[in-house]
Amino acid sequence: MKSDVEIAQQATLAPISRIAADLGIDESEYEPYGRDKAKLSLTLLDRLKDRPNGKLVLVTAINPTPAGEGKTTMNVGLSMALNAIGKNAISALREPSLGPCFGLKGGAAGGGYSQVLPMEDINLHFTGDFNAIGAANNLLAAMLDNSLFRGNPLGIDPQRVVLRRVVDMNDRALRSVLIGLGRRTDGIPRQGGFEITVASEVMAILCLTSGIKDLKERLGRMVVAYTPDRDPVTATDLQAVGAMAMLLKDAIKPNLVQTVENTPAIIHGGPFANIAHGCNSALATRMALKLADYTVTEAGFGADLGAEKFLDIVCPSAGVAPDAVVLVATVHALKYNGGVPRAELSQENLVALDAGMANLEQHLENLDKYGVNTLVALNRFPDDTDAEIALVRERCARLGVQVVTAEVFEKGSRGGLEMARAVVEVCERPHHYHRLYSSELGLREKIETVAREIYRADAVNFSPRAQRQLENLTRLGFGSLPVCLAKTQYSFSDDPAKLGAPRGFEITVRQLVLRAGAGFVVALTGDILTMPGLPKVPAAVGMDIDEDGHITGLS
Amino acid sequence: MKSDVEIAQQATLAPISRIAADLGIDESEYEPYGRDKAKLSLTLLDRLKDRPNGKLVLVTAINPTPAGEGKTTMNVGLSMALNAIGKNAISALREPSLGPCFGLKGGAAGGGYSQVLPMEDINLHFTGDFNAIGAANNLLAAMLDNSLFRGNPLGIDPQRVVLRRVVDMNDRALRSVLIGLGRRTDGIPRQGGFEITVASEVMAILCLTSGIKDLKERLGRMVVAYTPDRDPVTATDLQAVGAMAMLLKDAIKPNLVQTVENTPAIIHGGPFANIAHGCNSALATRMALKLADYTVTEAGFGADLGAEKFLDIVCPSAGVAPDAVVLVATVHALKYNGGVPRAELSQENLVALDAGMANLEQHLENLDKYGVNTLVALNRFPDDTDAEIALVRERCARLGVQVVTAEVFEKGSRGGLEMARAVVEVCERPHHYHRLYSSELGLREKIETVAREIYRADAVNFSPRAQRQLENLTRLGFGSLPVCLAKTQYSFSDDPAKLGAPRGFEITVRQLVLRAGAGFVVALTGDILTMPGLPKVPAAVGMDIDEDGHITGLS
Repeated sequence: MKSDVEIAQQATLAPISRIAADLGIDESEYEPYGRDKAKLSLTLLDRLKDRPNGKLVLVTAINPTPAGEGKTTMNVGLSMALNAIGKNAISALREPSLGPCFGLKGGAAGGGYSQVLPMEDINLHFTGDFNAIGAANNLLAAMLDNSLFRGNPLGIDPQRVVLRRVVDMNDRALRSVLIGLGRRTDGIPRQGGFEITVASEVMAILCLTSGIKDLKERLGRMVVAYTPDRDPVTATDLQAVGAMAMLLKDAIKPNLVQTVENTPAIIHGGPFANIAHGCNSALATRMALKLADYTVTEAGFGADLGAEKFLDIVCPSAGVAPDAVVLVATVHALKYNGGVPRAELSQENLVALDAGMANLEQHLENLDKYGVNTLVALNRFPDDTDAEIALVRERCARLGVQVVTAEVFEKGSRGGLEMARAVVEVCERPHHYHRLYSSELGLREKIETVAREIYRADAVNFSPRAQRQLENLTRLGFGSLPVCLAKTQYSFSDDPAKLGAPRGFEITVRQLVLRAGAGFVVALTGDILTMPGLPKVPAAVGMDIDEDGHITGLS
Repeated sequence: MKSDVEIAQQATLAPISRIAADLGIDESEYEPYGRDKAKLSLTLLDRLKDRPNGKLVLVTAINPTPAGEGKTTMNVGLSMALNAIGKNAISALREPSLGPCFGLKGGAAGGGYSQVLPMEDINLHFTGDFNAIGAANNLLAAMLDNSLFRGNPLGIDPQRVVLRRVVDMNDRALRSVLIGLGRRTDGIPRQGGFEITVASEVMAILCLTSGIKDLKERLGRMVVAYTPDRDPVTATDLQAVGAMAMLLKDAIKPNLVQTVENTPAIIHGGPFANIAHGCNSALATRMALKLADYTVTEAGFGADLGAEKFLDIVCPSAGVAPDAVVLVATVHALKYNGGVPRAELSQENLVALDAGMANLEQHLENLDKYGVNTLVALNRFPDDTDAEIALVRERCARLGVQVVTAEVFEKGSRGGLEMARAVVEVCERPHHYHRLYSSELGLREKIETVAREIYRADAVNFSPRAQRQLENLTRLGFGSLPVCLAKTQYSFSDDPAKLGAPRGFEITVRQLVLRAGAGFVVALTGDILTMPGLPKVPAAVGMDIDEDGHITGLS
């Protein structure tokens, strides 16, 4: 089979003006970025506000494994297959980050014959959104340190600065730094650090906002530091909000592109799925719902992280709810969860598969708690045996859940027709979506609810630091916010080695981070890195561009 | 008079497709970025390679003062006035940096009725070029620190890393930092620092390159560190070149926009004018020369820095030479150079003006050494008196140099007709452009030549460190490169307080920095900051955007 970049380069793109016109978008409602990308104006939402929403399909997955589940590929393939069976569908996706692209992962725009295009642009700078987010974050940081340097009129405790600078790169050497060294005029020395841009609260805000006015209010609420009395200092206090919002004037607009089969895709925003909510922007989803009969969106990592946050944070905030949830799994990943080493995943192993199904089942039970309608989509690999597929079907049938298989990576929409038809059916059933917890619960109780109901932890321990933070955040009036648990993506527990459906464990909350602008409180469990590092041989080493502009090594 | 942003918002832009069509650019030769910006394909240069070049006009200035000389405004006004008198002209300009925009300076896209548009976009992220440059630089830095962390196979001396990370922000707290702190897995601790993106060697390379192949060769030559034996380690050694070039695939393409009077402008690149060469990209200039009868370009800071580097570095590298040099001055700035405090510049003062003329005259004498044809353009302010203008004319007449006045800020092209006619005349005269020094001179002798001939220093002192570096760079075979002197822009000397035409001073070279990819050796004199800081009240504080996307505070 051809490589991703070869398939992408050989695809015939439709002019983005035609993609837009086919969606009924007026020429005044988008701006072309090159011939193949466009930014959609927010006025589109005003014009279409009385049009009923289409159906919303959430694509989520079992806990990710090194084998790869292909969630984005399945999302893209599903949207193409829906179009192939005569429905109008739009794929709503997150924008990839440069860091993982040059690190381990390579590109992130789907794969094989289920990709979004132009994949080279989408994987690189795309329309500049992440750059704008980074600039807004770093302007705020520069203004904060300038305020410290200029006599500290806001009374910031330099030991209690919580805002970090960002860079869209995997750069472990920037995790923990001392800044402001040198001469007197080189600033006030203090401990600091960098996160990858997708971890910035500005990213989370952009992905949850409803427009410029709301964006400015959210940016203004960002708590960047505390005084010695633990009172918050905000972006409003630093008078940075207007300039930050100005930097984000184009980034706030969703990006229209297309798949290899010329079906429309809206790709916008890309917050982390542990320390943030991990979904494409609410504006992108809301726009897609007005433009198509089916919107296929996705949530990062497994359903314990991404779907939980989509259902508890995004849906209430954006005023949407999924008509169907597609839980993606692979036989390989299920066997891995059943204890098979990576090198042996190609061999049939019904015993391990049976054990690994516990992971999938717990996700299904969890999703049931939200009152949503779920089906399982197996991303079928060539070496999956019929006996293995039958075992998955049988186990799911016991829970009353349908299983479909899809081969969209190898076949595009042709490989997703069964999945598409099943999704259409599920969307016709009434759903009874509700959140897992009420906003009236305290922060501690909300964290405990997620840990108990979703992770199945026996108890939640709070470090002394986290306990002090719980008290202070409640004192400051932030107790009514939803919680955003940051946990390893590889396990339901906070230990990445505990695969399957672990029981008899406790989780420990080390620290709380207020995201007052985004509107949630992050609870950090285990060892969560907000700045990845490069592997021994970074993916960047294999990348190149020739004189004609042809790219190699981006997959 | 209206503010810059008001004038910009009230201007009627022509579709960028029409601007391109009027220049004879085929639809396949550009990509629209929004309705008002386009990226020009490098294939354009191939198609037009046999077309004769138009005339090249360099706009430079006396030493800048806090009063502001309006060099970019004069450049834009001149290009519009040339069009107004029936010539085809293109303005070639540098892209503004976000740092100064939010710091002291505000926007940098001309001013008044001589602006390039859309000024909000040009001043903010524009088409993402600076972001790509920053990402390429920072990917290289991350790969360097990753190499240190992964057993240091290249034998890099962590104390001899010369590559710095960059951010497009004025952020003094990042000038000097300790990185790689924290746990064992958080990298190798070492001293580091950040520069503003425009100071990156990647920026200088992009602005001097002739295409992708040359870009890759230049990137590969970048020296990022030395071994303990002072042997260079390059970007090629780190296997970063392909990925870096891939990141720059769009940034290498010049950007087409227009002025408030709908005349075309090509804005591309923006290297610092002291530690780099301070001119828009060679590709932009070369393209403009093929597309128009007159190309009006500019060089940063005063003629001692910007024009010197344009004539000694850019022209030989790009294979171009100016047909006319326009030296911009204001009566205010000349009086400031004659010792008048800023608050009194509006009052007529012929004695001070007479004294300050020494600055202008030295620039004229200097330019004469290059065999170019120069005229003086006074950017006329409302309170300049006729007697003052007459004095400038008389002093210049003694040197055989014509003086024209222009009021392009207030009147647009109508205020620049005299200037335009004079420029056309000068361009008809034969010029005898040549470099100041031969490449066969040693690095020390080249530095001494510039210091003696342009600055009029009595001698150049080299710090012990700079002497060791001179020897090592010569040993490594870099002695044939041109030199790029980094000096305060406010004085011919290395002391910003010495205005006018100082004599009887020596300059001290503290340090040399090899820019093997850009193809020059930087000599740092005095106190050169490559990372500016924010002022007490940053310009960002006054900026805002409303719900309809209207921007205020960007001037």
